[in-house]
Amino acid sequence: MPVRVRLDLAYDGTAFNGWATQPGLPTVEGTLTEALTTLARTPIQLTVAGRTDAGVHAAAQVAHVDLPLAAWTGAPGRSDLPPARAFARRTNALLRRVRGPQPDIVIHTAELAAPGFDARFSALARTYRYLISDAAAPRDPLTRTSVLWHDRALDVGAIHRAGTAITGEHDFLAFCKPREGATTIRTLHHLSVTRRPDGLIAIEVRADAFCHSMVRALVGSLLAVGEGRAPEDHLASRLAARTHDQMQVAPAHGLTLMRVDYPPRAELAARAHLTRRRRDE
Amino acid sequence: MPVRVRLDLAYDGTAFNGWATQPGLPTVEGTLTEALTTLARTPIQLTVAGRTDAGVHAAAQVAHVDLPLAAWTGAPGRSDLPPARAFARRTNALLRRVRGPQPDIVIHTAELAAPGFDARFSALARTYRYLISDAAAPRDPLTRTSVLWHDRALDVGAIHRAGTAITGEHDFLAFCKPREGATTIRTLHHLSVTRRPDGLIAIEVRADAFCHSMVRALVGSLLAVGEGRAPEDHLASRLAARTHDQMQVAPAHGLTLMRVDYPPRAELAARAHLTRRRRDE
Repeated sequence: MPVRVRLDLAYDGTAFNGWATQPGLPTVEGTLTEALTTLARTPIQLTVAGRTDAGVHAAAQVAHVDLPLAAWTGAPGRSDLPPARAFARRTNALLRRVRGPQPDIVIHTAELAAPGFDARFSALARTYRYLISDAAAPRDPLTRTSVLWHDRALDVGAIHRAGTAITGEHDFLAFCKPREGATTIRTLHHLSVTRRPDGLIAIEVRADAFCHSMVRALVGSLLAVGEGRAPEDHLASRLAARTHDQMQVAPAHGLTLMRVDYPPRAELAARAHLTRRRRDE
Repeated sequence: MPVRVRLDLAYDGTAFNGWATQPGLPTVEGTLTEALTTLARTPIQLTVAGRTDAGVHAAAQVAHVDLPLAAWTGAPGRSDLPPARAFARRTNALLRRVRGPQPDIVIHTAELAAPGFDARFSALARTYRYLISDAAAPRDPLTRTSVLWHDRALDVGAIHRAGTAITGEHDFLAFCKPREGATTIRTLHHLSVTRRPDGLIAIEVRADAFCHSMVRALVGSLLAVGEGRAPEDHLASRLAARTHDQMQVAPAHGLTLMRVDYPPRAELAARAHLTRRRRDE
């Protein structure tokens, strides 16, 4: 009998062509699928909360996988650890074997999923963060793979105002690479822009879901406002115009998936059912 | 007439075989020397405050270089920036050309050095930080090149007590890879061990100077104490025994040079004179 396992994981997207498996290219899904297939001794299929693009990172990604019960419990007596700890440890050991001693993918926790849980369709919201070192901030070579270095000084207040003007439920066509038959209506719960104590500008966005390249398209337009190349109503105007012509997409490497929110246990199945009906993404 | 230029810089040591030039190997000094030689149109020689080992990083390294005045001022009218800003910008542009758009070496500031300044011999103290993610801390793939992942839980209090027991002026032979004719007497001004809010353990050490591999040897012994494999007087005992047998050297990648301290302008030359007389390192 198969069991559904929830995986909470993190990765450095630098060396990967994104989450989704692509033949002949290193991907997070491909690498993790290989490890879990080895562990389960049978082909497995991952489902993920946020399908990150090439170069995008995750501090707290969520995925699920259906496995034979024996793959979850492991060989009897092989470990004194609780099954969840032992499973995460075995998976991390396999990842270390292919990605080095301090690998770029790490399973933080594994657990038996609550009934009705679906990593993708049960999710209520995704939170992403985009980090920028502008002309007013120091360049730190140690974080250069997850921070955009931007040559000009940016007006944090203007970016914040331009961003918060478009929160709420809208058709985000202007910020979506369109896909046949997919809706581009999303609810942007939250957008905030702050200058952190370390000098970096952090743009944090939370939505029920994001369409393809949406965060990077939002950031691209926010950079234009921050530089003074576009007025503060720039995003609101683009949103209203519902055109994705001249979409300015910010580089991938500044973007990190920070959190995925799920409803309480009792509402997981109902939420998944609702999401599946409302959209195909 | 040559001018002496002080450079404050940072680098990610991952891809380098340390600071010091080695024929045929990528080094920080080699890369920077090449850029500055291009800029000066004449061979130059760098002097550095902390000669970091292969894989060791720097958040705030200091170096100096003697250059023809024309290389400092640049071609007349080429830039509206003050010479110091323009020089740093030209150097960074050359580094980007060889190390990519967000390079692993960055010049933070360049300035004409105060009279008597010597990046190595005028320095009063160097501060290094070693970061550890032990069993009690989460693994963050995005910082894996500058944090040691340690499988066991570490006792921060025990490490702190073991470390602070050896501050002061001592013969640190037990923690030095010995070099012909070089003294191993150093003053360890400060050693502190803290569990940061993000869960990482930070070991911070400041000394007048460190001999080769000294910080990593101190950390290696501190890890033994933290794991409970060695008693809290482990470092004090080794120090007293003055033997470098069985030196346990922690991996390089957890180590970062954080700061170099210099005396006030008026004392720079006297300090350099004193240091040169006292030691050859």
